[in-house]
Amino acid sequence: MRIALYPGTFDPITNGHLDILDRARRLFDRIVITIAINPHKKPLFTMEERLSLINQVLEERGINHNVTVEAFEGLLVDFARQKGAIAIIRGLRAVSDFEYELQMALMNRRLEDEVTTVFMMPHENYSYLNSTIVKEVARLGGDVSAFVPSIVKEALLKKYGRR
Amino acid sequence: MRIALYPGTFDPITNGHLDILDRARRLFDRIVITIAINPHKKPLFTMEERLSLINQVLEERGINHNVTVEAFEGLLVDFARQKGAIAIIRGLRAVSDFEYELQMALMNRRLEDEVTTVFMMPHENYSYLNSTIVKEVARLGGDVSAFVPSIVKEALLKKYGRR
Amino acid sequence: MRIALYPGTFDPITNGHLDILDRARRLFDRIVITIAINPHKKPLFTMEERLSLINQVLEERGINHNVTVEAFEGLLVDFARQKGAIAIIRGLRAVSDFEYELQMALMNRRLEDEVTTVFMMPHENYSYLNSTIVKEVARLGGDVSAFVPSIVKEALLKKYGRR
Amino acid sequence: MRIALYPGTFDPITNGHLDILDRARRLFDRIVITIAINPHKKPLFTMEERLSLINQVLEERGINHNVTVEAFEGLLVDFARQKGAIAIIRGLRAVSDFEYELQMALMNRRLEDEVTTVFMMPHENYSYLNSTIVKEVARLGGDVSAFVPSIVKEALLKKYGRR
Amino acid sequence: MRIALYPGTFDPITNGHLDILDRARRLFDRIVITIAINPHKKPLFTMEERLSLINQVLEERGINHNVTVEAFEGLLVDFARQKGAIAIIRGLRAVSDFEYELQMALMNRRLEDEVTTVFMMPHENYSYLNSTIVKEVARLGGDVSAFVPSIVKEALLKKYGRR
Amino acid sequence: MRIALYPGTFDPITNGHLDILDRARRLFDRIVITIAINPHKKPLFTMEERLSLINQVLEERGINHNVTVEAFEGLLVDFARQKGAIAIIRGLRAVSDFEYELQMALMNRRLEDEVTTVFMMPHENYSYLNSTIVKEVARLGGDVSAFVPSIVKEALLKKYGRR
Repeated sequence: MRIALYPGTFDPITNGHLDILDRARRLFDRIVITIAINPHKKPLFTMEERLSLINQVLEERGINHNVTVEAFEGLLVDFARQKGAIAIIRGLRAVSDFEYELQMALMNRRLEDEVTTVFMMPHENYSYLNSTIVKEVARLGGDVSAFVPSIVKEALLKKYGRR
Repeated sequence: MRIALYPGTFDPITNGHLDILDRARRLFDRIVITIAINPHKKPLFTMEERLSLINQVLEERGINHNVTVEAFEGLLVDFARQKGAIAIIRGLRAVSDFEYELQMALMNRRLEDEVTTVFMMPHENYSYLNSTIVKEVARLGGDVSAFVPSIVKEALLKKYGRR
Repeated sequence: MRIALYPGTFDPITNGHLDILDRARRLFDRIVITIAINPHKKPLFTMEERLSLINQVLEERGINHNVTVEAFEGLLVDFARQKGAIAIIRGLRAVSDFEYELQMALMNRRLEDEVTTVFMMPHENYSYLNSTIVKEVARLGGDVSAFVPSIVKEALLKKYGRR
Repeated sequence: MRIALYPGTFDPITNGHLDILDRARRLFDRIVITIAINPHKKPLFTMEERLSLINQVLEERGINHNVTVEAFEGLLVDFARQKGAIAIIRGLRAVSDFEYELQMALMNRRLEDEVTTVFMMPHENYSYLNSTIVKEVARLGGDVSAFVPSIVKEALLKKYGRR
Repeated sequence: MRIALYPGTFDPITNGHLDILDRARRLFDRIVITIAINPHKKPLFTMEERLSLINQVLEERGINHNVTVEAFEGLLVDFARQKGAIAIIRGLRAVSDFEYELQMALMNRRLEDEVTTVFMMPHENYSYLNSTIVKEVARLGGDVSAFVPSIVKEALLKKYGRR
Repeated sequence: MRIALYPGTFDPITNGHLDILDRARRLFDRIVITIAINPHKKPLFTMEERLSLINQVLEERGINHNVTVEAFEGLLVDFARQKGAIAIIRGLRAVSDFEYELQMALMNRRLEDEVTTVFMMPHENYSYLNSTIVKEVARLGGDVSAFVPSIVKEALLKKYGRR
């Protein structure tokens, strides 16, 4: 069985993440969405909220049999080893992504040679999409229906006091 | 069985290509190295020479049971369909690579949604390596032992009349 | 009356070009599509064919009242002066575009301060599109209906002996 | 009448901004400099100070008949609609600018197709200039006369207790 | 005597910095490692700790006869003048570095034409290395022996309560 | 005595090259402008013409006592060794430059560890300047007085039959 981690902040999960996930599911037998606990970042959604939103989305789409979500603290490669994962999946949209991702992939390879970082590019419709811009649009009252699952949209509206 | 294409010009195959291949072999059951017949390019090695060099390298490394090499003419996604491949593997080293690769990946996805382009980054020791710079160093009499398998090194020396 | 040049090779014109053109038409009163005669390049379509294809597309779309197409040889800024144009329109898709375009824009500004280069970004559906990749797909027998007007598609099929 | 927004933080306005503004004035009949109210950012100058500095600069240059400045809170495209603007003007200096700007332009186009983002490149003398570096130089006692209007220079000196 | 500054935050000094330093020592007679006092940044190591770590490393390597370290506050070019330095040395690893560095180099040249910024590229083994990623790996319990001198490794372990 | 090579095609030498040269002269005792003989490239000016143009420019500027020019064929690092050079000087203007240069610098370091590649950035007035664009402007009848020494301008006009 080939297992892959799909790490990220997922604050919140977007349709761009789900596009990558759909394609990753064809390549691997099991995907573990992995939310890093990072004391430096101040996310909009708590870890519990992010786990719950993703679990609802996975269930709704009927893909929770081979996709799970977990929070973890520590080195990503240690978590990969613990889970028996052979790959780390990352989405690549832009040059600025690319350089940071290259750096992380080389560092992770150095720390654990058995785990391979694998990059996929989201559909062009999501090329300009990330969690930050979605939150900004939602905060300012724009319609985010095209960018996130409806459960996430509702959660965003609640957070920003618009529901 | 999960099959992936690893397309390229391979003029000639380098240690950077082999590094990507080693990692791709962990993720897929079978890899088809795919050399596109391109009437616009004038390679140093003929198609026959490139196929032969790769076959020798695969045999020498004992990986010819699950890695094969083929020439093909036409749309890469058509060849993927014909081979039952679910993925196209590409190495990513630099920003300039990135943009061309992004363009090709999006076009290929548009032409055939069932095939996913997957990117991997070579070891940092090969980050500055490509077939063009290896040929240039060989042509000018530099030592390329660290950059290509010894069979390829011999072939380069012969081509440039240095053996 | 505000006139702008939209220069390029247009070998052939694509839906990406037309997307830029549609938006440029809102900002200026008249657009002159400008095909540079470049002795260094070997286009697939002759200058006559490119002019004719564009004229047919403009007519078909009913925009030939305020968009025209002309061939010219010389410095682009001289042609702008001659036409009374105040702006040069360029599409921007990628970082590699960006640097070349920045260089040309600064040089043109240096040569003629009265003309301003204006950049627009095509719809994300065309972000991976350019004339070169469209020709390659057509040459290899792929369907280019989504990428070029039908007149251009027919012309490509004829060129590559597929009709 | 063609109206364009020129949005930014303008903390403070620099000669690079004014260079873009001078060129934008040739393409549009009216420009509305638009300062977004952003609760996440902590600017050096208050909104009132920034509006006042820009108004003084516009008056001094005698361009306040067709250039105005306004603060706004919300989605930029909503403000464009409200003002009857057909374009959003942005300066482009560097690759890092480019990617963020591309993302914003595509998102804004998605949110309001009638508004077109238009990019211009500042004179090469301002290619390295932005408000952040100007503030840093002023803070450390360097001479910023070449980078900002004299009113802004005075305001910077006062802020940093050097006058 | 040709003197050069090697400015940075050095929070903490890494093997990547030392690689640049080794090469800079061949080109200049004296190098002054220069740590800017920056009230905006919150470093992990205090200025005293950083100075002390670097001094220990220089002594250990026996290069303290022509490399010194100093803290300074103000414009870097003023410090260069004060020290009689003709050059500022900077390491370049990635495109994102490049643009920021280009901006700083042009600004410094503008402020003081007599000082030249000189860029060097670290060994490919350090291409993915910077102080931030080293701190992150150390914080999460990863082994940083390959990335920093052993004195720095000990200091990191102490800071993160792992020793 | 510290010697540095300044390699390039110099087809022809521009004011951007001379700007880099002026700064390099402050850092090194002797500079050898090095024109690689490259059978793949078809320059506008013959090797003899390029050597002669550079020699005239060096003499005119009175810097031929510590700057010389030579043609060479082979690996650049071999030539550096032969000349006793400790450094290779390269100008850096753009991201696209940067990646190619990084690749070459790492390859040269691999081939000869004793030689260090040193990058400098030209004055912003030359940031958009290279030999190719200067030739294009001259070919089309534009004025290149601001971009090249007058001797080079005359040579360009002659080549393009404009004198």
